[in-house]
Amino acid sequence: MKIAMGLSYVGSAFHGWQSQPDVANVQDTLEQALTRFVALDSPIHTLCAGRTDTGVHALHQVVHFDSPVQRDEFAWVRGTNTFLPPTVAVHWAREVNDDFHARNLARRRRYSYVLLESVVRPSLEHARVGWTFQSLNLQAMQQAAAELLGEHDFTSFRAAECQANSPVKTLYHIGISQHGPYWRFDFEGNAFLHHMIRNIMGCLIWVGQGKHPASWMKQVLQARDRDAAAPTFMADGLYFLGPQYDADWNLPRQTPAFHWLPGAWNA
Amino acid sequence: MKIAMGLSYVGSAFHGWQSQPDVANVQDTLEQALTRFVALDSPIHTLCAGRTDTGVHALHQVVHFDSPVQRDEFAWVRGTNTFLPPTVAVHWAREVNDDFHARNLARRRRYSYVLLESVVRPSLEHARVGWTFQSLNLQAMQQAAAELLGEHDFTSFRAAECQANSPVKTLYHIGISQHGPYWRFDFEGNAFLHHMIRNIMGCLIWVGQGKHPASWMKQVLQARDRDAAAPTFMADGLYFLGPQYDADWNLPRQTPAFHWLPGAWNA
Repeated sequence: MKIAMGLSYVGSAFHGWQSQPDVANVQDTLEQALTRFVALDSPIHTLCAGRTDTGVHALHQVVHFDSPVQRDEFAWVRGTNTFLPPTVAVHWAREVNDDFHARNLARRRRYSYVLLESVVRPSLEHARVGWTFQSLNLQAMQQAAAELLGEHDFTSFRAAECQANSPVKTLYHIGISQHGPYWRFDFEGNAFLHHMIRNIMGCLIWVGQGKHPASWMKQVLQARDRDAAAPTFMADGLYFLGPQYDADWNLPRQTPAFHWLPGAWNA
Repeated sequence: MKIAMGLSYVGSAFHGWQSQPDVANVQDTLEQALTRFVALDSPIHTLCAGRTDTGVHALHQVVHFDSPVQRDEFAWVRGTNTFLPPTVAVHWAREVNDDFHARNLARRRRYSYVLLESVVRPSLEHARVGWTFQSLNLQAMQQAAAELLGEHDFTSFRAAECQANSPVKTLYHIGISQHGPYWRFDFEGNAFLHHMIRNIMGCLIWVGQGKHPASWMKQVLQARDRDAAAPTFMADGLYFLGPQYDADWNLPRQTPAFHWLPGAWNA
């Protein structure tokens, strides 16, 4: 049978989602925990909604896998958590129809970036927030962000290693808000290219600092050239808030409550 | 000349504040950074307002030290931060009168404890929040907390290793508030014994879970016996919010903004 599962993890504790030899990654860590929980010889393989990079946190990653055994839904949660390190936790599990696919059926994905604007670098929030000591212009960043909404070829914001079939993606929403010394950037799109949000963040911050006018963002987009954009911004403040599936799948849609995200998602 | 300094740090990155051989601690880490910054042969020794335990975080620790050299106040901040690991940051420095003493002159100290109530353990907040999967009764905990206000002999909440001269301390305020799945416990007192807040937390949670009635807290207090209280609760969610000095000292009184603390301090 097929199981869908929602989990959260600390990105800085892993070299990204994807399975790879010799370094800690979330996929291998989860699959080993699942395999130990079902206590059978055949390993369990998972497929996730959004492959996060090194340092990128997940509030609500969704995976699916085929299970040779049946367990109660909460037994999956409790049992798997027993074999996971403290930096990863499973929040829910649901038996799903065989047609379910965590990646292909995700209609939209949400990310948030949390940025500390302060003359002093973060300490308690080390690896949990991005940082700038220069002040930012909200209006300029909002104007620049508006240039990116809709369906575009995002080649300028795509890392060389990107495995996506097409650079054409749709951005539905970019929200920018200030909460004391913290900035929060919300992104919603159908899908994202490798490093796309961190590359957009680099450009938004350059505009916010006055290094370029807001209209520069359109030039970057139209250039379809990675060299036209700003350097990839640090991963530290980036959180995957999760995928959205059609309501028919009857999966939990809510990102777990998390008090580190200043303000509320208001899309 | 004498310098006062405010800093923040991740408690779980250190074996507590206090200098000791062979393990990472905040005091040695800070003193080495200061000594490198002044670039003289004689090491700098610091004295802090509140010696935090292993795992206890500080939003606003205050230290003083004698410096053989003069530097601009912001040069102290920037220069020391250059030599500190990313889990510690200096926020301010002030030249102070020779009479200043970070520990002896602190009139009050504030701590907050952040607790996650959830069937699933924390992952992203690992080592940053305490955790209970059982639901808690706010009113019972508030009644129990009220028994502790004022001047008392807190021997029942004192760790065996405590170095304080007297077990008699004054608690001015205990505030308990709920923010979604998070509980926040605020403590303000003239000073705190070793493990005192974690031992009080253990008792409050037992009362909140209905293991004992609120009136039990008075029995524990009056027993003046560590065995009468609950076990020491985990350090993970405990934050030192800082000391308060007489306004004449003209030191920054504000705890740096920190979005991980749900709600605002309202004392």
